[in-house]
Amino acid sequence: MIVPPVRVGTALGPVRLTEAAHTRLRPAAAAVTGGFWGRRRSVIAEASIPQGPGLLESAGNLHNLRVAAGTESGEFRGRYPFVDSDVYKWLEAACWRLAEIGPGEGGPSARRLADDVERISALIAAAQQDDGYLNTWVQLGRGEGRWTDLTWGHELYCAGHLIQAGIAHRRATGRTVLFDAGRRFADLLELVFGPGAPGGIDGVEGHPEIETALVELYRETGEARYLALSGHLVDRRGHGLLGGGAYFQDRVPLRQAETVEGHAVRQLYLLAGATDVATETGESALISAVERMWTAMAGAKTHLTGGLGARHEGESFGDPYELPTEQAYCETCAAVASVHWNWRLSLLTGRARYADLAERTLFNALLAGVSLDGTRWLYVNPLQVRDGYTDPGGDKTNRRTRWFRCACCPPNVMRLLAALPHYLSSADADGVQIHQYAAGRISAEIAEGPVGLRVETDYPWHGTVRLAVENCPEGEWELALRLPHWCSRYVLRVAGRDLRPEDGDGWLRIRRAWQPGEEVELTFDLRPRLTAADPRADAVRGCVAIERGPLVYCVEEVDHAGGGLDRFVLDTSTALTEEHRPELLGGVVTVQASGWRRRSKRSGDWWPYRPAQAAPVRRAEAAEPGERLTLTAVPYYAWANREDGAMRVWLPTG
Amino acid sequence: MIVPPVRVGTALGPVRLTEAAHTRLRPAAAAVTGGFWGRRRSVIAEASIPQGPGLLESAGNLHNLRVAAGTESGEFRGRYPFVDSDVYKWLEAACWRLAEIGPGEGGPSARRLADDVERISALIAAAQQDDGYLNTWVQLGRGEGRWTDLTWGHELYCAGHLIQAGIAHRRATGRTVLFDAGRRFADLLELVFGPGAPGGIDGVEGHPEIETALVELYRETGEARYLALSGHLVDRRGHGLLGGGAYFQDRVPLRQAETVEGHAVRQLYLLAGATDVATETGESALISAVERMWTAMAGAKTHLTGGLGARHEGESFGDPYELPTEQAYCETCAAVASVHWNWRLSLLTGRARYADLAERTLFNALLAGVSLDGTRWLYVNPLQVRDGYTDPGGDKTNRRTRWFRCACCPPNVMRLLAALPHYLSSADADGVQIHQYAAGRISAEIAEGPVGLRVETDYPWHGTVRLAVENCPEGEWELALRLPHWCSRYVLRVAGRDLRPEDGDGWLRIRRAWQPGEEVELTFDLRPRLTAADPRADAVRGCVAIERGPLVYCVEEVDHAGGGLDRFVLDTSTALTEEHRPELLGGVVTVQASGWRRRSKRSGDWWPYRPAQAAPVRRAEAAEPGERLTLTAVPYYAWANREDGAMRVWLPTG
Repeated sequence: MIVPPVRVGTALGPVRLTEAAHTRLRPAAAAVTGGFWGRRRSVIAEASIPQGPGLLESAGNLHNLRVAAGTESGEFRGRYPFVDSDVYKWLEAACWRLAEIGPGEGGPSARRLADDVERISALIAAAQQDDGYLNTWVQLGRGEGRWTDLTWGHELYCAGHLIQAGIAHRRATGRTVLFDAGRRFADLLELVFGPGAPGGIDGVEGHPEIETALVELYRETGEARYLALSGHLVDRRGHGLLGGGAYFQDRVPLRQAETVEGHAVRQLYLLAGATDVATETGESALISAVERMWTAMAGAKTHLTGGLGARHEGESFGDPYELPTEQAYCETCAAVASVHWNWRLSLLTGRARYADLAERTLFNALLAGVSLDGTRWLYVNPLQVRDGYTDPGGDKTNRRTRWFRCACCPPNVMRLLAALPHYLSSADADGVQIHQYAAGRISAEIAEGPVGLRVETDYPWHGTVRLAVENCPEGEWELALRLPHWCSRYVLRVAGRDLRPEDGDGWLRIRRAWQPGEEVELTFDLRPRLTAADPRADAVRGCVAIERGPLVYCVEEVDHAGGGLDRFVLDTSTALTEEHRPELLGGVVTVQASGWRRRSKRSGDWWPYRPAQAAPVRRAEAAEPGERLTLTAVPYYAWANREDGAMRVWLPTG
Repeated sequence: MIVPPVRVGTALGPVRLTEAAHTRLRPAAAAVTGGFWGRRRSVIAEASIPQGPGLLESAGNLHNLRVAAGTESGEFRGRYPFVDSDVYKWLEAACWRLAEIGPGEGGPSARRLADDVERISALIAAAQQDDGYLNTWVQLGRGEGRWTDLTWGHELYCAGHLIQAGIAHRRATGRTVLFDAGRRFADLLELVFGPGAPGGIDGVEGHPEIETALVELYRETGEARYLALSGHLVDRRGHGLLGGGAYFQDRVPLRQAETVEGHAVRQLYLLAGATDVATETGESALISAVERMWTAMAGAKTHLTGGLGARHEGESFGDPYELPTEQAYCETCAAVASVHWNWRLSLLTGRARYADLAERTLFNALLAGVSLDGTRWLYVNPLQVRDGYTDPGGDKTNRRTRWFRCACCPPNVMRLLAALPHYLSSADADGVQIHQYAAGRISAEIAEGPVGLRVETDYPWHGTVRLAVENCPEGEWELALRLPHWCSRYVLRVAGRDLRPEDGDGWLRIRRAWQPGEEVELTFDLRPRLTAADPRADAVRGCVAIERGPLVYCVEEVDHAGGGLDRFVLDTSTALTEEHRPELLGGVVTVQASGWRRRSKRSGDWWPYRPAQAAPVRRAEAAEPGERLTLTAVPYYAWANREDGAMRVWLPTG
C-alpha cells in the first residue's frame, strides 16, 4: 500500500474539547490515506463537494443570499425556510476538505474550491444584518418576521450551521470572515434568548442544532456565555415552549426522558448538543440522561443498518421494536447525526459500544445515502423495496435523486465524510485508542509525548489491520484497539507474538513499552454470517439478514433473473460463500446463499388469508417451497447503483 | 325473538338504480329488527346521531353556516375547508334514521331529530348563494376564492355530500328544501365543469365524492346531464389536472389503472362513483377496470379486518402486500367507502365476493371505528398497539376520541349504519338474494310479484339463520343465500329437509315453488379458527390470527395480567375454545388459546440483533419459550372499550 504524503493536522476537527472538559478521551489527529474510506472519500472530495456551488446556485440558495446582500433583486427561492443551512453545511464540508489538502496545496481544483469558499463566505457576511441576524427566508419577506415562528422557522438551526461552518473555516484556513459572522449571530441570540437577557424571549428552536454549535463556539473562543446559552436551551426544552409535542422533543425535559421519540434528526441533534454540554460541565444527571436514551434507542429503535427513524409520518422514531422494513425512514441526516452523537459519547465515556454503533452506521445507513459516484442521493434508506414498488417521486422516493427540494442530507454527508479522520481515533494521558479501522496515519498526544501510528488495511474487505508505531515516547503506554461488537473471532499479534488480552469491555488493550517500528497485526474473522432480530421486532420475524464484518448485505433484483424477491426463501441449512468482485460496484465482496423462489399464488382465490391449519400444503411447501435459487447479496451501502428494482435486507427462512 | 312492527320501505336507501341500469341485481327493502346489528344500530340511533347537532355546534360548523347566511357574524371556525361536509353527512344519517322511524312515529326524540333536520336544512338553504354555490370556507373569506384550489379546496366534495343529504332528506321525508339546495349546486357545477360548458373549467376535484352523488341525482331526477357530468369527471381524472399524483388518483386514467393507489378514501370514493357510472351506462371498459382494481386491492392491499390504507403518510395504500400492523392506517372512512363500493359491485355483477368483503369490513374495520356506547371514535384502526405505545394525541391516536378536528369519520359511520338495511338484500326478476345476515324483514319485488321474508338470527354469536317466507307469488323462484367465504362447513335445511346445493360461486341457490310459511334454516360452523397470511405479507410472517365466523379477534392487555403482549406466543398444537360472555363488552363470545409469554431479554447486551446460528438457545426456547399462559381474545370491533393498553390481532407462533 502506498501512503502518499498527507497532512496529519492537530485535531483540526469539528469537536475540540476544552482543557476543562470532563472527558475520558480526546480526539487524535488522523489522516485517511487509502483503503475503503480513502476511496469513498475521494469520491466525496472529487465529485460531491465540487458540484456544491453549482447546485446551490441552481436551487436558488445563493440567489437568496445575494438578494439579502442587496446585490440582486428577486423573490425568495426554495420551498423551505432553512435553505441557508444547505450553504453552511456545504461550506463546512469544503473547509474540512481544505484543511486536509493544506494551504496552497492540491492544484487548480483545490484553488477553485478555496475561491468558492471565500466568495460564498463573503456573500454570507454581506447578507448578514447589522445586528448579526441572518436568515434569507425572513429577510426576503417570507413568514411573519424574526422569531415569530420558532417552531418551524429554523432561524436558530440555520445559525447553528453558520457557526459550525465559521469554526471549520477558521480551523481550516485561519480566516475569520465566516467565523465572525457566526459569532455575531451567536451574540444576537444571547441577547434575545439568553437566560438573563432583559426583554428577551423564553423560547427554544423547533429544530435543535444551535446547542452543539454554541458549545463548539465556546470551545473556540473560551467564552463561557456560549456554553451557558447552549445549556439554557437544553434546559428549557420539554416545558411546552414548542407546544409540548413529542415531535419536537418538547413533551418532557431531557433529563427526565426515558427514550428517544419524535422527529429523529431533531432528537439526535439535541442529544449531540446535550452531550457536548455534559462533556464541558460534567453534570452527572445530563450524562445519565443521554446514556439512558442511547441504550433505549440502540436496544429497541435502531435498524440493523444503524438507521434511525421508523416512520415516514413525522420522520420520527416509533414505539419500541417498531422497525418496519419497506417503510423504514432512516433519514440519511439521522445517520450523520448518530455518528456525531456517538463520537461525543465515545469521548465522554470511553466506552466502545458507541464506536460500534458509529461503525455500523457509517458502513451502512450513512453510506447508502450517497451513490457510488457521489452525485446521487437517498433521503430515506429503507431495508426493503417491494416487488411492484410504485415510485412516489419527490424527496422520499426509494430511487436515487440528484438533489432534493429539502436538500439537508447531501451536504450533511459531505461534511461528515470530509471530517471523517477526526472520528477515528482518540488519546488520553496514558495511551491511544483506535475506534475505527481505516488506512492512514494517526498523530496523538499522550502525557509523555507525541505518538505517531501508521495503519494499513483493506478492511472491511479483508480482515487484517496492521498498525506500525512510527514514533512514541519512552516507557509504557497503552494502545487500545476496538474489538467490534459483531466480531466473535480474531487473531492479535504484537511485535511478532500472539496475544490474547483479557476482556476489556470492547477494547483490546495492549500495554507495553512500545518501540518505534514495532507492529501490531489484528485479523478479524470476516466470514459472512446470518443475523436474527429480537422476537419483538415484528417486522422481521422469521427472517435473517446476511452480514459480513461491519457490512449489512442485501439482495437486489438486478442480480436475480426472474425477480420475485418477495418470494425468496433463504435455506439456512447450507453455508454462505463469498466472492471478491473487484469489477462490481467499485469493488465489493458478494455473499452467496442457497434458497428458493416460492411459487406464485396457485389458486385463483381473491383473498390473501387462509386457514392456518392447511397443514398438508404447508408441509409440502416447507420441504421444497419453490424453485431452487442461488441468492447473491451485495453490501447494503452499494444498493441502488444499477437498475431500479426490488431489494431486501431481511430474508425469510421458511 | 320479538319482531316489533317496523316499516319496510320501498328500497328507500342511498342507491336506487334506474330502470335502464345495466345491473344484475337491485336493492330490496329491508328492516333490521334485532340481533347483533339491531343492538349496534340502536346505539347509533340513540346515542351517536342525537349528539350530532351539539357537536356540530361546538365545533363551529353551524356557526360557519349562520355567518354565510348572514344571521351571525364572526370568523370561519375549524381547521379544514371541508367542515361543511360533516353537517351534510350527519343530515344524511339523520334522514335515514327518520326514514326508518316513519313520519310522525317515534315519540319526542324522533320529533326533536326531525326538527333538528329541518332547522339545519333551512340554515343550509339560507347559506347558499344565489347561483347555487355553497362553501363556508370560501364564503367566509378563507382561501383565494371559488374554484381556485381544486386540489385541496374540497368544494365539489362538499357539494357531493350536500347532494346525497338532499336525496336522503327527500327520500325519507318527501321534503325538498335540502334536495333543491343540492340540485342547484349541481346545476352550477354543470355550468362550470360540464363537458360542453362555455368558458368552463377543465378540472376535477381533489377528493372524489361528487361522482357518486351526481349519479344518484340522475337517478332521483331522471336528468341525464348529471350522469354525463359524473362520467366526465371520472374521465378527466388521471390526466394531470391535479398535478398527476398517485395521491389524487391522477397518475393514470381509471380505465388504465392496474391497482388502487394513493389516498385510500379518495380512491374508494372514486371507484364507488365510477361503478355507479358503469352501472348506469353499462360501459364494459369501466366495469372491467373497477373489477380489476377490486381484485388487486382485495388480493394484496387489504388487511384481515377489511381495513384499507397501509400508510399514515398520505393516508394511503401501500405497495402490494405492504400490510403493516401497528402502522396500519385503515381509516374508518375507508371502511365506510369500501362497503359503499362493494354494494355497488354486488348489484352490478351479482358476485358474492363483494358481499364477503363487505361483511368482513362491517364486522371489523368499520365497527371498530365507533365505541360500544356510540360516543367515542377511532380515525385510524391499527391491528397492533405495542407495549410501550406512546400516544401521539391528535386525530391519529390509537385511543378513542370524542370528536376529531377532521371529523369525517363519525358522521360517515352514522350514515352507513343508519342506512344499513339497504345493504343487506337484493332481488332480480327471478328471485331474492341475501347478502348479509341480520335479524329483520325483507320486502322484494320479483317478476311475478312481491316477496316478504322474515329473518331470525343471533349471528354472528350463533351460527343459525332462520328465514321464513311470509308472502310470495306462486310458481318457482330462487332464494339465494350467500355462503360466506370464511365458511367451510354448514348445514342447510329447507322446509324441513337437508339440502346441499351445487357450487353456486359463493351462493347457496334454492329454487322452488315457495309457499308462505315455509322456512329455511342455515347453520354455519362458527368454531374459532386460526388464519395465516400470504407469505408476501411480511409484517405478519410467522403469525396467525384468530377468527370466528366473520369476526376477527384480538388480544388486549386488559385481559392479561402482567401484560407483555409483544412477547406472547400462541401454541398452535392445542385447540381453541370459546365462551359466551353476555356481561362482557355488551355481550360477546371470547376465544381462549394456549400459549406462552416469552421471557424478557436475558442478557445485558445493548444490541437487539444476534447471530442466527445460536441454535442451542433457540431450541430451548422453541420447547418452552417462556411462562405458560391462556390467551383470551375478544372481537376486534370491541377493542379499546376498557382500559388503555396494548393490543394484537396477529400472534406469533414461535
